[in-house]
Amino acid sequence: MSERRIVILTDGRTTPTGAKTASCVVRYKPKEVVALLDTTQPGKTAGELLGVGGSIPVVANLADAPGANTLLIGIAPSGGKLPAAWRKILLEAIDRGMNLVSGLHDFLSNDPEIAGAASKKGVEIYDVRKNNEKDVSNRLNLREDCLRIHTVGQDCSVGKMLASVELTIGLKKRGHDAKFIATGQTGIMIEGDGCPVDCVVSDFVNGAVEKLILANQHHDILLIEGQGSLSHPRYSAVTLGLLHGCVPHGMILVYEAGRKNVHGMDYIPLVPLKKIVEVNETMASLAMPSKVIGVAMNSRALSPEEAEAERERVGRELGLPVCDVIRHGPDVLIDAILAFRQKLFPHLKAKAG
Amino acid sequence: MSERRIVILTDGRTTPTGAKTASCVVRYKPKEVVALLDTTQPGKTAGELLGVGGSIPVVANLADAPGANTLLIGIAPSGGKLPAAWRKILLEAIDRGMNLVSGLHDFLSNDPEIAGAASKKGVEIYDVRKNNEKDVSNRLNLREDCLRIHTVGQDCSVGKMLASVELTIGLKKRGHDAKFIATGQTGIMIEGDGCPVDCVVSDFVNGAVEKLILANQHHDILLIEGQGSLSHPRYSAVTLGLLHGCVPHGMILVYEAGRKNVHGMDYIPLVPLKKIVEVNETMASLAMPSKVIGVAMNSRALSPEEAEAERERVGRELGLPVCDVIRHGPDVLIDAILAFRQKLFPHLKAKAG
Repeated sequence: MSERRIVILTDGRTTPTGAKTASCVVRYKPKEVVALLDTTQPGKTAGELLGVGGSIPVVANLADAPGANTLLIGIAPSGGKLPAAWRKILLEAIDRGMNLVSGLHDFLSNDPEIAGAASKKGVEIYDVRKNNEKDVSNRLNLREDCLRIHTVGQDCSVGKMLASVELTIGLKKRGHDAKFIATGQTGIMIEGDGCPVDCVVSDFVNGAVEKLILANQHHDILLIEGQGSLSHPRYSAVTLGLLHGCVPHGMILVYEAGRKNVHGMDYIPLVPLKKIVEVNETMASLAMPSKVIGVAMNSRALSPEEAEAERERVGRELGLPVCDVIRHGPDVLIDAILAFRQKLFPHLKAKAG
Repeated sequence: MSERRIVILTDGRTTPTGAKTASCVVRYKPKEVVALLDTTQPGKTAGELLGVGGSIPVVANLADAPGANTLLIGIAPSGGKLPAAWRKILLEAIDRGMNLVSGLHDFLSNDPEIAGAASKKGVEIYDVRKNNEKDVSNRLNLREDCLRIHTVGQDCSVGKMLASVELTIGLKKRGHDAKFIATGQTGIMIEGDGCPVDCVVSDFVNGAVEKLILANQHHDILLIEGQGSLSHPRYSAVTLGLLHGCVPHGMILVYEAGRKNVHGMDYIPLVPLKKIVEVNETMASLAMPSKVIGVAMNSRALSPEEAEAERERVGRELGLPVCDVIRHGPDVLIDAILAFRQKLFPHLKAKAG
């Protein structure tokens, strides 16, 4: 397709947590985004509302972003359903000749009204989560010295994708052939490839992830995006299939400082970090020996002083290097990954950095 | 539908392990089965080939079972695909006015040729695995004193369904209001309800199972069929979603004596039973305290003497009651379940038995 000029639909939910997909696309593809569409806050900017995206404007109407050729749905609600009020915005976008990009579980291309209008107008619908995965895992032919690092979490929506992307960028900057392995709709929108594991039929999750690894192991280091948590009441099936499908050598634990309860289920307390490390190591090691080698702390809710105290406390508690990849940069974790790699594969020559 | 008179298609695979679905349907619905269809072994009986089903005949042609009104696919191959050679048998069955029952991942009702023929002839297709589960788990409103017992396994195809059914039958015989909760295609064919969890989109596995529990907790004791194993390279996603969706009070470990490697992956050794107990208790207890309270040993490959020695050895190793629910009957495990229930819910009056 020709160059994308995207309007991101975040109507009424333009906040860093309410519009997770929007925040990430704005962060990593700022040149492609011409506006956010939120009828409740026109005139503001992405920078003001999301903390990223600088002067990208918020508009109330598609007509206010005349050069756009793509409407991207910028939220990932629990259950993945399309808010009812958005239907007429999607139909208007189609009428304006815009393509649609959606990561919802409710596929737009299966919606008779939307698909019919798109077909009539000749625009395309990209349902990022749509897949037809039907292969089981075989756990064969894994490249021995392709390092697989997997981000695992205490909860969903803590920053596993962000940590994976930042670590990949940092490793590349140091001259390594690293690749971000996207496993969720937002990651796929950013990276352009990957597998929407949470929308794969459960029998084939492990197999779909393994296929993704086999297709990318010509790279030297894979940073595999985690999903949910092994302790998540809703999504643990996804998490374990992903863990066993990607058979990581090492894991980076991701959590949000200050969060006490499961995201969206505030009546269920989070499982402590120490236990999360233990269950991830136990479950990963059913496939092959695997260790948590560092912690990516999401400290967005903390002051700089609080963040330092938290970093210190968690590092001491878990005996692991800790950083916030946004606040501190990812270097501490990149050092940990490279040292781990050197220890695992001593035959590989150390590269610069 | 009117009374089913079933031919079970097991062509070329009429063995207890090759035709798992057939064996179970024959075992629990013998009056509905008029014949097995296997072109390679006509003239034999179900009893000879499957060890169950007595004199139910094996025929080579549908014409040899003229009274039948239903063709049921009697295998559950890895990946769930339709063997290519069976297509013309299905089309012939449709032509004879028979309904189709299938537990394959490849839905017959989505196959243009088969669905077209069925529609033309006015026969019905029951794709047991077809579902549209789209609800996440909430972990709310569970009845406190409805006992949830979940069969968990060292591997797939070890007898978790069989153990669950036998325990349910045994508990009912002792006057308890027990219900078998089917979670796989064969269990659903036998029980008439349930959820095909391995065919549910991974984000919704936990939720689909929870829904099944909520719909059945007017019964006093639920025996929830397990799937795969937490250690299974292919199916662990299904297993953990099921475990966290049904939040069991207690678990029964099921394994096949003498099996050394993962079913269908003979290059991967099984995880030892002790470790399987440990990971199931650890992972279940992330939701609520849960224990393995007994072991259902599948000793089909052993002599009576070997079975006794194995039972003794495993009981000592794990410190748990052990029996083969077919060879010994389920009483030892039923006693364990009732004692466990009495301890958990001392306010419930002990019933006879």
